[in-house]
Amino acid sequence: MVFDSVGLFGRYQDADVEETIVFLQSWLKNKGLQVFLGDTTASEISGMRVEESGRSLSKTIDVGIVVGGDGTMLHVARVLADHDLPVIGVNLGRLGFLTDIPTESMEQKLEEILSGNFTIEKRSMLSTHVNRSDKQIAKFTALNDIFLSKGNTGRMIECETKIDGQSVARTRSDGIIVATPTGSTAYALSVGGPILHPHLPAIVFAPICPHSLGQRPLVLDERSAIEIRVVDLAGATANFFVDGLRSLSLTGDETIYIERSKKITRLVRSKFHNHYETLSSKLGWG
Amino acid sequence: MVFDSVGLFGRYQDADVEETIVFLQSWLKNKGLQVFLGDTTASEISGMRVEESGRSLSKTIDVGIVVGGDGTMLHVARVLADHDLPVIGVNLGRLGFLTDIPTESMEQKLEEILSGNFTIEKRSMLSTHVNRSDKQIAKFTALNDIFLSKGNTGRMIECETKIDGQSVARTRSDGIIVATPTGSTAYALSVGGPILHPHLPAIVFAPICPHSLGQRPLVLDERSAIEIRVVDLAGATANFFVDGLRSLSLTGDETIYIERSKKITRLVRSKFHNHYETLSSKLGWG
Amino acid sequence: MVFDSVGLFGRYQDADVEETIVFLQSWLKNKGLQVFLGDTTASEISGMRVEESGRSLSKTIDVGIVVGGDGTMLHVARVLADHDLPVIGVNLGRLGFLTDIPTESMEQKLEEILSGNFTIEKRSMLSTHVNRSDKQIAKFTALNDIFLSKGNTGRMIECETKIDGQSVARTRSDGIIVATPTGSTAYALSVGGPILHPHLPAIVFAPICPHSLGQRPLVLDERSAIEIRVVDLAGATANFFVDGLRSLSLTGDETIYIERSKKITRLVRSKFHNHYETLSSKLGWG
Amino acid sequence: MVFDSVGLFGRYQDADVEETIVFLQSWLKNKGLQVFLGDTTASEISGMRVEESGRSLSKTIDVGIVVGGDGTMLHVARVLADHDLPVIGVNLGRLGFLTDIPTESMEQKLEEILSGNFTIEKRSMLSTHVNRSDKQIAKFTALNDIFLSKGNTGRMIECETKIDGQSVARTRSDGIIVATPTGSTAYALSVGGPILHPHLPAIVFAPICPHSLGQRPLVLDERSAIEIRVVDLAGATANFFVDGLRSLSLTGDETIYIERSKKITRLVRSKFHNHYETLSSKLGWG
Repeated sequence: MVFDSVGLFGRYQDADVEETIVFLQSWLKNKGLQVFLGDTTASEISGMRVEESGRSLSKTIDVGIVVGGDGTMLHVARVLADHDLPVIGVNLGRLGFLTDIPTESMEQKLEEILSGNFTIEKRSMLSTHVNRSDKQIAKFTALNDIFLSKGNTGRMIECETKIDGQSVARTRSDGIIVATPTGSTAYALSVGGPILHPHLPAIVFAPICPHSLGQRPLVLDERSAIEIRVVDLAGATANFFVDGLRSLSLTGDETIYIERSKKITRLVRSKFHNHYETLSSKLGWG
Repeated sequence: MVFDSVGLFGRYQDADVEETIVFLQSWLKNKGLQVFLGDTTASEISGMRVEESGRSLSKTIDVGIVVGGDGTMLHVARVLADHDLPVIGVNLGRLGFLTDIPTESMEQKLEEILSGNFTIEKRSMLSTHVNRSDKQIAKFTALNDIFLSKGNTGRMIECETKIDGQSVARTRSDGIIVATPTGSTAYALSVGGPILHPHLPAIVFAPICPHSLGQRPLVLDERSAIEIRVVDLAGATANFFVDGLRSLSLTGDETIYIERSKKITRLVRSKFHNHYETLSSKLGWG
Repeated sequence: MVFDSVGLFGRYQDADVEETIVFLQSWLKNKGLQVFLGDTTASEISGMRVEESGRSLSKTIDVGIVVGGDGTMLHVARVLADHDLPVIGVNLGRLGFLTDIPTESMEQKLEEILSGNFTIEKRSMLSTHVNRSDKQIAKFTALNDIFLSKGNTGRMIECETKIDGQSVARTRSDGIIVATPTGSTAYALSVGGPILHPHLPAIVFAPICPHSLGQRPLVLDERSAIEIRVVDLAGATANFFVDGLRSLSLTGDETIYIERSKKITRLVRSKFHNHYETLSSKLGWG
Repeated sequence: MVFDSVGLFGRYQDADVEETIVFLQSWLKNKGLQVFLGDTTASEISGMRVEESGRSLSKTIDVGIVVGGDGTMLHVARVLADHDLPVIGVNLGRLGFLTDIPTESMEQKLEEILSGNFTIEKRSMLSTHVNRSDKQIAKFTALNDIFLSKGNTGRMIECETKIDGQSVARTRSDGIIVATPTGSTAYALSVGGPILHPHLPAIVFAPICPHSLGQRPLVLDERSAIEIRVVDLAGATANFFVDGLRSLSLTGDETIYIERSKKITRLVRSKFHNHYETLSSKLGWG
């Protein structure tokens, strides 16, 4: 077999997720694989936890299976990317861009994958660090996007952006989003950004509801060094988000640095995965 | 003279505003008018305050002159609308949609207006009240817009809207804005809304960065009764804004009711005011 | 009965349309109504033609029933509006904004309507005339929209617009559309326009793919007098469309005048018609 | 000197262009360079024509200087790309994305460039061929964009797109544009596309005014093979454009193939060229 040991990840509180994980646990064991449970949340599912192995994640499992939606996937993918481990996504009910295997055809698809019939799709990630008064205060990795967003204020915030050291623009807006191709179909799309092909070595940079109508979304080389200086937060603490999770409060003295991460997410895809079919289905192109 | 008594309003802390107000104070007195100072903020400008008259605002002054930008104007206009008093807008440096008299030609324009050479432009306003658990907790009037906006969360909030009792849509978005024609050139424009003619008896209803790309801005009859029920705030207190001022925290159990206000703002316009010139200049149509 | 005589309209060549019309013909006769066939196209359906009555349309029928899509409806509605006759829309398969009765529930809905259980929804129309070298060369009425569009050229055309005699903007674009509330959900929506409530006394004015990003859609009072002067057609004959039908070639010396028509379209609606349900269904708000 | 022989290109009929070319002709000769005139149009300017050299363009000149706007530049750049020759752009009055040297500072900038103080910016180009009934009927190269556009019809046309052999979408729209990064700031921007960094190995694919609001602009890898099959032209001959020039009539039986060209345009840039300054100035980001 291609994989000897599998980690199962999901929000165990959700009854549907739990049921699917319990099913997969025994189904995979029957196939002769070692199965570990990810420590996503406190849970009643009995079984070996990855951390009980006493070894690092990369020495414990060969692949992760995420059961749930794109949100859970984002979280787990960041963890697995730290260990350069591939990940498989099983969705419950609603097709996801990342979790593309429906539970109905789960057995058949996993069968195929376990017998080596798959491709690995590499998704680039972003690395960001935030400086406050020139001192680094935090560092994160994102698979979808990094954005800053006005706090509890009805006025726009002001930022100044440099790309590769060149001054780009002062922007008055609700915030700014920087997204990977993977993130281009998530929040960045609602903001007015384009849809990037998943393998494009590029990054979307888009102001959120900008005051200036000419400030349209930019698509940059993924090797760009982006620097966003917070200039005026309109009197309220702003927020800094990594894959949609609030990760920092911004007080007005911060500069955000964003570049391509050295880590990548390895999506295990059934050979018949069709990116445009997913787009068409989720965006109603039919 | 058409007006016997004038109120001067502005953010006195701003040196430019103070200088212009002090100038107008003596200029108007020399013309034989009574001049009162609005109690906008604590101030060092000496002169009679409107509240020192011991009478209601409407019995003290015949017209207000606002010195500053559209922000100051919004605030003062709401106060004057309570007393059905007309308002004149003088801008400092940057042309405003509401404050359209530049300081350079201020004397000439005011001369014209004081000699009766003006038109009154009526701008409709919105009335809103918020119920929490079916109990009214607040009531406001707006000249520009009313919007609700997600709080400190990176996820979208969900609202359900009814118009005239008819269910319209469930919306997942960063928030929802409802704007008057006056407000259509402010925040609503950044959100993707259209530009409404100032006299149109209509209201813009627009989701802010909606998840569903088909949820485009609606233009409704101004007599519509709009009802926005907060369904899911994504785990964070959301905010409710009136003319861009944070007016309430939303906890998830609120319904917002919006309809045309009985109050109106009366803008005193020089006869040569041209709406499209202002648009063209501010939006770079040139 | 509310109606004594009915006209049936549709594109007879279409087998589905023909079948439905033949069915309705006998179904209505059985109810004791006089039934005439509109002379839409050469046809094999036997029955009385409206023109065979030897009288004007308004003296021949009391109401028209259109079988088909919104395209057929637009055409017939303009004809019936000339005679101030109401119209009922039956769609085949795909829900229309105007043709909202599906064939499946056609009998029940028509039964209701014939027994007086309906409302008349008035839709405003546009009147336009085109002058070439100051001489009127054509005149049209539209229910949806009027637009001009560049011809066989890859460059943008240039127009100059006045509204109520006031100069608005020079526009370089692929064209300009002016739409009624009814038309706001048709081509104008694809162009980036807002969705107007059907009863709003307003008009959308939108440049098509404008060069200047600040030239956003305008919503005007329906009493506005719009004047679009063709300035530069980029070397190619341009086209002028009324409800999507090419109605004129523009050579570069034309001015287009648009205002509300005195005619209106009277849509017969089942009492349970819900405008927002149609929007939601057609735009995928679900 | 870096360059020994220069070709001057421009629309000679334009008096301003002619004056600048005549000036440059003698200015360059005085510097000891050979100067040839491009055969852009019939002209009264005396001097050696490139074709009079009796040799191929690449053996006659080392670099081209275009005097005029981005339109002229597009045309000349395609010609020079055939010979792998670099090009310098001088604009008259209005800053261009490609013609970035203003006449006022022309002497100083050219002095710098001639003394070797420049960079060569490579701009990728598109190659397209069109098949009718599976037979190739034409082949073109573009620096900005390739688009097809409905003809003299008020209805939308329908196309079917494949990318790398995968079916993407059926699109009902006014047309479809495929643009290089260079073209992303031209017509594609008016259509709603994003702004691509000039060096990004990517292509914009955007429907023009699509019927389906979910069909947003795509950004593809520049190595993608795009195939657009014309499905329904709504009863009118459609048009096919290369860099904005009408290059073909489409009758309904065509398939358009687009991929990266092997040719590139080499822009000679002053070392201080700042892409974002040009964007900011032309799009009013200020």
